[in-house]
Order: sequence, then structure tokens, then C-alpha cells
Amino acid sequence: MFKGEADLFQSFEETASPEQGPARLEALRAAMAAAGVDAFLVPRADAHQGEYVSAHDERLAWLTGFTGSAGWCVALADRAGVFVDGRYRVQVRAQVADVFEPVDWPEVSLGDWIAEALPKGIVGFDPWLLSLDQHRALAKKLPDRELRALDNLVDQVWQDQPAPPLGEIFVQPLDLAGEAHGEKIDRISQSLTADAAIITLPDSIAWLLNIRGSDIPRNPVPHGFAILHRDGRVSLFCAAEKLVGLGDHFGPKVSVAPVEGFLNAVQALEGRVQIDPATCPMAVAALLNDPHEAQDPILLPKARKNAAELEGSRQAHLRDGAAIVRFLAWLDAQPVGSLTEIDVVKQLEGERRATNALRDISFETISGAGPNGAIVHYRVTEKTNRKVEDNQLLLVDSGGQYVDGTTDITRTIAIGSPGAEEQRAFTLVLKGMIAISRLRFPKGLAGADLDALARVALWQEGMDYGHGTGHGVGAYLSVHEGPQRLARTGKVPFEPGMIISNEPGFYKEGAFGIRIENLIAVEEAPALPGQSVPQMYRFETLTWVPIDLRLIDADLLTEAERDWLNTYHAEVAARISPLVEGGAKDWLSQACRAI
Amino acid sequence: MFKGEADLFQSFEETASPEQGPARLEALRAAMAAAGVDAFLVPRADAHQGEYVSAHDERLAWLTGFTGSAGWCVALADRAGVFVDGRYRVQVRAQVADVFEPVDWPEVSLGDWIAEALPKGIVGFDPWLLSLDQHRALAKKLPDRELRALDNLVDQVWQDQPAPPLGEIFVQPLDLAGEAHGEKIDRISQSLTADAAIITLPDSIAWLLNIRGSDIPRNPVPHGFAILHRDGRVSLFCAAEKLVGLGDHFGPKVSVAPVEGFLNAVQALEGRVQIDPATCPMAVAALLNDPHEAQDPILLPKARKNAAELEGSRQAHLRDGAAIVRFLAWLDAQPVGSLTEIDVVKQLEGERRATNALRDISFETISGAGPNGAIVHYRVTEKTNRKVEDNQLLLVDSGGQYVDGTTDITRTIAIGSPGAEEQRAFTLVLKGMIAISRLRFPKGLAGADLDALARVALWQEGMDYGHGTGHGVGAYLSVHEGPQRLARTGKVPFEPGMIISNEPGFYKEGAFGIRIENLIAVEEAPALPGQSVPQMYRFETLTWVPIDLRLIDADLLTEAERDWLNTYHAEVAARISPLVEGGAKDWLSQACRAI
Repeated sequence: MFKGEADLFQSFEETASPEQGPARLEALRAAMAAAGVDAFLVPRADAHQGEYVSAHDERLAWLTGFTGSAGWCVALADRAGVFVDGRYRVQVRAQVADVFEPVDWPEVSLGDWIAEALPKGIVGFDPWLLSLDQHRALAKKLPDRELRALDNLVDQVWQDQPAPPLGEIFVQPLDLAGEAHGEKIDRISQSLTADAAIITLPDSIAWLLNIRGSDIPRNPVPHGFAILHRDGRVSLFCAAEKLVGLGDHFGPKVSVAPVEGFLNAVQALEGRVQIDPATCPMAVAALLNDPHEAQDPILLPKARKNAAELEGSRQAHLRDGAAIVRFLAWLDAQPVGSLTEIDVVKQLEGERRATNALRDISFETISGAGPNGAIVHYRVTEKTNRKVEDNQLLLVDSGGQYVDGTTDITRTIAIGSPGAEEQRAFTLVLKGMIAISRLRFPKGLAGADLDALARVALWQEGMDYGHGTGHGVGAYLSVHEGPQRLARTGKVPFEPGMIISNEPGFYKEGAFGIRIENLIAVEEAPALPGQSVPQMYRFETLTWVPIDLRLIDADLLTEAERDWLNTYHAEVAARISPLVEGGAKDWLSQACRAI
Repeated sequence: MFKGEADLFQSFEETASPEQGPARLEALRAAMAAAGVDAFLVPRADAHQGEYVSAHDERLAWLTGFTGSAGWCVALADRAGVFVDGRYRVQVRAQVADVFEPVDWPEVSLGDWIAEALPKGIVGFDPWLLSLDQHRALAKKLPDRELRALDNLVDQVWQDQPAPPLGEIFVQPLDLAGEAHGEKIDRISQSLTADAAIITLPDSIAWLLNIRGSDIPRNPVPHGFAILHRDGRVSLFCAAEKLVGLGDHFGPKVSVAPVEGFLNAVQALEGRVQIDPATCPMAVAALLNDPHEAQDPILLPKARKNAAELEGSRQAHLRDGAAIVRFLAWLDAQPVGSLTEIDVVKQLEGERRATNALRDISFETISGAGPNGAIVHYRVTEKTNRKVEDNQLLLVDSGGQYVDGTTDITRTIAIGSPGAEEQRAFTLVLKGMIAISRLRFPKGLAGADLDALARVALWQEGMDYGHGTGHGVGAYLSVHEGPQRLARTGKVPFEPGMIISNEPGFYKEGAFGIRIENLIAVEEAPALPGQSVPQMYRFETLTWVPIDLRLIDADLLTEAERDWLNTYHAEVAARISPLVEGGAKDWLSQACRAI
């Protein structure tokens, strides 16, 4: 096992303590009064704006009890709003005490709410936790209110706050990274139009320097900051304790200094400095005079996986696919009604661990039986745990972090014999998933141009799903990675090497949920005879796991769709069968039969 | 016949005199020198920024010989660039003399070209012909050059320039307009956030006041300007000669003044004034201090056709469809090889004229045989006229202006027996056209979200087309009307009543062109059993003309596509058969057979 002695990465506890919320809010208000501010902002985010934060940064959960992956608390002397998006509207009501008012965000912006709730006064914030863009949006809504940066007031009142993480940093081997970090530094520094770029995203730093970290769960990244100089040097700011195992990996181009020296180093920079306003903390942005604002220059190079990263992903997916096939064979062999959602999660993680290559799960497995499958971001806890019953759908969305790649796969599985409604919906979702899988498209298009193709089969029946069709995925990095998306909001053109998920779904509230997800990678499409478009792309499929044939109404498929499905299953059998034994092998052969 | 004694709206002459270009350019340069400017801008556009201009405003064609519907000449003392877009790159070389340099626009902007060609000096322009947005773009590229507004120098040197048009204005009957102009004025003026809105688009003025005009070809609009006051008054600026037939149509809310008084009236406005920067001439914008910039407030109400406008369009399409069916029956009866492209145009216009309801054609009919069909914006002239030969495709894109509606239809017709390549391409185009025709989609989506659905069948074979899938269409107004588009650039959500074209295509340069076009209107889709999306839209088909079955490879169609086609043809037969006689009736019944 790579890290930790626990038997399981995933836990099923409610970790927050909402009953403490009122007292903690009172303590915060006392600190606000002492600091002379009338409001204080408590975001879920840390200084690195990622999806996961360390225990040290769980300020929002500590204060309010709300454990979602995005949100804000705005504390005033007499009110406290908890801002959560559509995913968390039900959850927040169950998690926070009455002193907190849930606010529908982003429909209601922080600025508008504050403007109404606090006619005048000073709004305090921790400048490490607010990006330049967020600060601007707030300032625009509150033109005549002072926004005052100050030390974090939650940290002042949180007695037993865990220390910032000091997770070990590891070298990402060159044969998996595919490009030496010295070459990456040269390539990207030479592309800068400014004299230096500030890098605050941990996965950007990890990819650039060919390192991985262990400061937060699920994302193998180290916390730290970096300055990429146009002359080809990198200054990394990060605790020395984390680096002990790195030896001379960095070489002469990279200098390391304590994170406490970062702001001074920024201030000492000469020439034009580039920041990404979407993610650069105000603590940094406020030091710079007329910075050049541009997207983090590492985002696009990182998104375009090189040959080694793609090959790593293929290997990780074969290993992961075999684990899932063992899990699915096991699942089918259990007596109906004998399992709970948690049993499912444990068995699946156990199969991944049994590969002896699992470094982490890539997110909390979603295991939703029956109506729980319709909760798009469901995470099972001891409290919500349902029995997996006969004639239900079971939705399992999960992924593994392996040193050679990050996986993310959803399969929806028939338990017993679900009805015709479920089968019809499943087949319509599958048609969308196949449409993307077999698509060819001209160079230059982005996710927004293609998203409808995954939905039209559902639309024709008055159905749809309330999330994007796919997100970018990292190479042993974050399972949600930009800048490309397969969604109406995806404006970045697809380029060869980009890995994305293809995961249409359908959710009937209170009844069932369906999602089918493979990872795919953009590649050049070889020219067809008589092709007239100069350059076309297509998707290479990375995920090889059967799609449940018991849920398919074959009459609804076109011949081309059926061909795709049968070819896919033949390939699944050819690739995965050599990796599994016994009952799983038999199960696989049956699950991959042509229809 | 409604207007004019000519037998034909369309002409086949080259109207420009390119051989005169060098002398005219020299005259312009003398005027530039006298006026003290180093450059002068000559756009194709008039003050109303439409697609058609009057003979008075044909400055670009007069100067350069270039007759395209968009473009610019930038005249310097020693060079003269003619800026044309992708449609006109071949045409411009054939039309202009050597003293004019064709420039690829908008890839090369006017500002960038001037910045390089004229290191310093004064750039003169006619402030009526440059919009605020255009002026801004130019000023941004030329920060240290003076842009000087002055009287049009082309008008100074153009000896026999035709006078501005004084075309008669007619009332658009209330039963066709569907809403009294007084009600429109109240509704839209009450929606203004400014105290007055400047309206410079002729079709906005025509729609608002329920009038139509005859100042320019093809678009039945009057030239003029208007001020819409928030208190529910309209000031119309327009030559009194045009209004003699209107009687007391306008009523008390509308006051009329000569167009010469417009700028003074703008200057005298009190309170906040709203302009559309995309189309408002600099002559107007320059008078206003801090205007409110917003889209022309009439665009969206005009785009959402009311019940009377939709019913008018249905009637116009039945009448137009019958004329086209007569034309198609005639075409099939001619001996192969006996016709030219011009014969085709004449016969088609003749059938439309024979309805005794045709007020104009809605644009120059595109009649492209064989390789000419691959020129997307082809207009046949005596010089380019081709024989329609055996075993070719003939592409005919045409439309009529009727008092109750504007039509626009493309059919691609088999002459003899075109080959399997043409048949396969035609069927792929048809699949895209059917995909849009039978689409249901959730409320809130725009053309950009749907455009791919018309292309995916082509994409799968490495094919595509280089234009949008569809444009908005007016109600006895412009055949190209915004703000919605069915294209990657279409960001305005579709709303019930919007009429758009559905016209995918495929073009093989030097060989053949295919386009299939119906007009369709957005409507609410009745809920399906079990529908989960709250509100869905679909398209009502307006165009009823057979699609050439001889060009369809039925094996490439899905069952759903074949069902759509057979249902469409059954409806064409049911609607059009009662409107045609004899041979056309027989032809129609055969052309509408089920496959």
C-alpha cells in the first residue's frame, strides 16, 4: 500500500459538528467586533482554489457544519448566510443549525446579499482565500463599502485547528511524465509574454516540476506557490519538510524557499508579472502594479497529454477496468437484497486496492441505489445508507488514482429486473454516450459545440440531464481538470491529447438515476477516402468495462449504435479477459456478448 | 403586378464599370488632397447598415467595380485596398482594376492595414457610414492617427450619382401585422430604460410603424430614422414625398419631419438616450453625451412573430410552394441540355409572378448548375451563365416577398442521373436537415447549442459546410434578420414565433453543390407522456415543396428519418395538390411518393 494504514480511503461518517455552529459563530462575531469589521467572508476554498482542501482549511465545515465541496459563509453581527449551489440545497438544510440561513448561490451573489443585509459597514476577508476575480465582483456590487483584508478570523477562534499539511512530495518518474521538467520549464517560460508568471494552482506546479504530493485527499498534489521566470528559472515556495525524499530531482533551474518568503519574492520581482485573475489570491495580486492578466500558462500544456501520459492512462484504465470487472462479477453473484450501498463501495475499493497499485481513490465513490441514484452528487454515509433492493438500478461512479493515470467511470447496474421505463431511459442515455464515442468533428470545435449531440436522443423524448456531459481529467492529477469541458460552458477548443469524460445521464427524482461514463482522449482522425475537411478529430476510448446489456432496449438503437456497442464489448473482452480469472472471466465473456 | 413594369426583378448584367476605376480613384485622391486627408474610407454600407443599398449609395461599386454585398475600400494617396470576405475572394479579382489591392477581410482588419500602409496622417470618413462599434475598432488600432469625419468625398466626385431614393411607403395591413402600431409603440417604449431610443434600422422602423417601403431592392423597407420616446411618442424623419399614400395611418403618436432635421432633434433630446453601437452611425453617436448602449429594442419583438405574422407566413409559403412545384414540374419536362441557369431563374420568377401576389424576389435567385452550385453565393450573369447539363446537380436558392410573408427555399435537383457520390452527399445533407426539422429541445437554448446536430452526419464522413445552418427571416421584411441565428455564432435563445432557415449543405469545389432549405418557426412542444423537462420547443415547418427523391440513398436513412420524410411528403401533397393543376398535379403526386 502506497500511503496510510487505513483499510479504506473512503469514510462513511458525517464529519462536521453542526451542533457546535451557534457557539462558533458567536466566537467569530466576537473576533469580528474586536477586528472592527461588520462582516467576514468564510469560503470553502483554500488559497489554491481546488476542489479538495486539507483539514487545516476546512473552515466552512468547522464553522457551519456544511461539508459540500463549494460554498461560502458570510457572517454578519445579526445574520449569517450560507451560500450553496444547486447540488447542495437539500444537504445544507440537513447540515447547518438554524442560526445559518441557506442562500441559493450563485443565483444570489455574495455582493447582492451583503448589499441588502448590511446597508453600510466594513467587509473583512482573508486575502489568501479570495481570488482577484472574486474580489472584483464583490467590489463592483459594493461600491461604497470598504473591503478590508485581514488575518483569518476563523483561525483566531478555531482552538484545535489542525496544522497546515506537510505531506511528502514524490518524483513523478520521467517515463510516465514523458517530458523532463527542465524541458517543460524552458518550453513554457519561453512562451511567456511577461517577465514572470505567478503559479498558485498545485496541479500546475506538480505537472511543471514532475512531482506529486500528498497534502490533500484525492488529488495527489503538494501545496505551494511558484514563480516561473521568463529566463527559464522556477522559484518554488514550499515547506522544506515535504521535499526530503526528492534528492537532486529539481536540478539547477529550480530553487526552493519557505512558503513564508513567497510574498516578499513577489514584491521583489522586476518587469511585467503575469497572474491568472480567476485563481490568483488577492494577497498576491494586491502587491502587483498593473500585472498582465492571463490564464495560468500551464493549464493548456498540462491538458494536452503527451504520448507517455496517454500510454500511462491506457495502462491505468486496463488495470482499473479489470478491478471493476471483478467487482461487477462479484456484485452479480450476491443474493439480491443482501448488500447496502456501503458494502458496494467497500468491495469496489477493495478490488482496486488488490491491484497493489492504487494510490488513492480519485473522489468519493458515488454508490446510489434506487432513488439515491437520482442525487447527482450523492455520497453515502452511515445515515443515508440504503439496501440495494430487487428490481432497482444501482449507480456507481468511482475512480482510482494510479501513478500512471487517473480513472473515472460510471456504470449503472440492473439489480434483479428493473422495469421498461428504466430500460428505455438507459438506452436513450446510452445513445448519447455512443454519439460522443463515435464522433468525428472538425478541428477547432469546443465542448459547447458538441454537447447537444449527447442529449438529442433524450430531448426527443422530453428528457435531459442537469449537468455537463464531460470534464477534463488529469494524468495522475485532479480528476476534474480544465480548461476544456464537454459542456455548454466549454469554450476551449479540443486538442489532441486532452482527456475528457463522456457521461450523459438521466435522473428521475425519488425513483432512479442513470449515468454511463467512459473517459476518452482527443486524437487526430485518419483521413477518410474523399474527406474534404482538412483536419478532423475523434475520441480514443480509454475505459474498458462492460455496459449492462440487461438495461438496453436494442430496438431503440440504430445499426451504427449497435455496431459501436458490439465492437466496444468485443474490445473490452479482448483487453480485460487476460487480466481476470475464474468467475470474473466467465462473467466478462457473458457481459460482452454481441446483441 | 405590384410595382415596376419590368418583366423580371432579377437582372443578369454586370452592373459595375471596373474600367473606370483608375480614373475615379484619381478623382477621389484629388478630393482627398483638397480636403487635407491622407486616407478615405468607402464602405459598401449605407447609413442603415443593411444588406441592400440604393443606387445612390453604391459608392463602393462605382469606385472599384466590386459589387459584393459587403466590403470596404480604403483609398490612400499611393495605394487602395479593397477589403472583401471569404465569399468574394474570387469575384473581387475579376471585378476590380489593378490599382485596387484585394485584402482578405476580416482576417486583416482595416485598422491593421492602415496602420501599416499609412505610418502617419489623417484618416477621413463619412460619419453616416461608420457605426460607433466600427469607429471604436478603428480608433483602437490607430491610437495616434486622427480619424476625421467629413462630407462624403465620393459624392463630391461622382458626377452622375443617382439621387437618394424616394420610394413610396405603404401601410402594412393590421390583419397581417397582427398588432396595431400604437400598441407596439406603447409596449416597446415602456420597456425602455432610457428616455429615448434612436432607431436607424429601416426594418425596425417599418415593423414598429406597420409600414413597408420601396427605397431599396429586395427589402421592402423605407429609408429613414426614428426616435422612440419613453412617453410613447415616435418622431419619424423621412422625406414627405414618400408618405403621400399613408393618409392618417400614423395617428397622434407619430410625428413626421424631414430627414434633414434628424440630427438637430437628436441634439435637442433631454435625458438619457439609447443607441445600438453596432449600427448607430457616428454622425448620431458623436452628438450624444454618455448614451446608453443597448441592442435596438425592436430587434427581439420583431423576431418573435405574432399569430397573424405566422399565419401570413404559412399562407405565403403555400402560395410560394405551389409556384415552385409548377416550376419543378416544368423543369423536369424540359429536354435535358436545353436550359441555361438564366432560363431557370426566369421560369421560376415567372411562376412566382403568375401568383399575382409577388411584390419582389427576396434576394437574387441562386441558380447553380454543376460546378457553379459549389459557389455558395453564386449569382448568375450573362458572362457566367452555364448550360444545365445531363447528370448534373442544379442548386436553386430563391425566395419571394409577398405582403403576407417572406420566403426562402433551396432545392437541389437531379438533372439526368447524377452519380452515387452526389446521392450519398445529398442524403447526408438531408439527414442534417431532418435532424433540425424533427428536433425537440429545452427552452433557453440558442443556435450555437444546436448547430452541430445538422452537421454530425456529414462529419462522420469527413465532410462539412462553411456557412451557418440558418438565419432569421422577417415577416414581409428582410430575408436575413437577427438577432437569432442557427449557427455557432448564434447566442440569442430561440423563442416561440422566431422564423429561421434550416439549410445545411455540401460543396465540392469545381464539381457540385448541395443545399436543402426549409423555413421553420419555433413553437412550444406539447408535453410528451412522462416528460421531465419543464418546457420544450420544436420547429413548425413552413416550407412545403418536395425534396428530390432521385437523390436519396434510402439505405443511409434511419427509420425515424424515413418516417419524417414520408410524412413531410404526404403533407406537401395534401397542402399543395389543391393549388396546382394538370401536369404539375401529376408531377407532385409522383414527387411525394413514400419511400
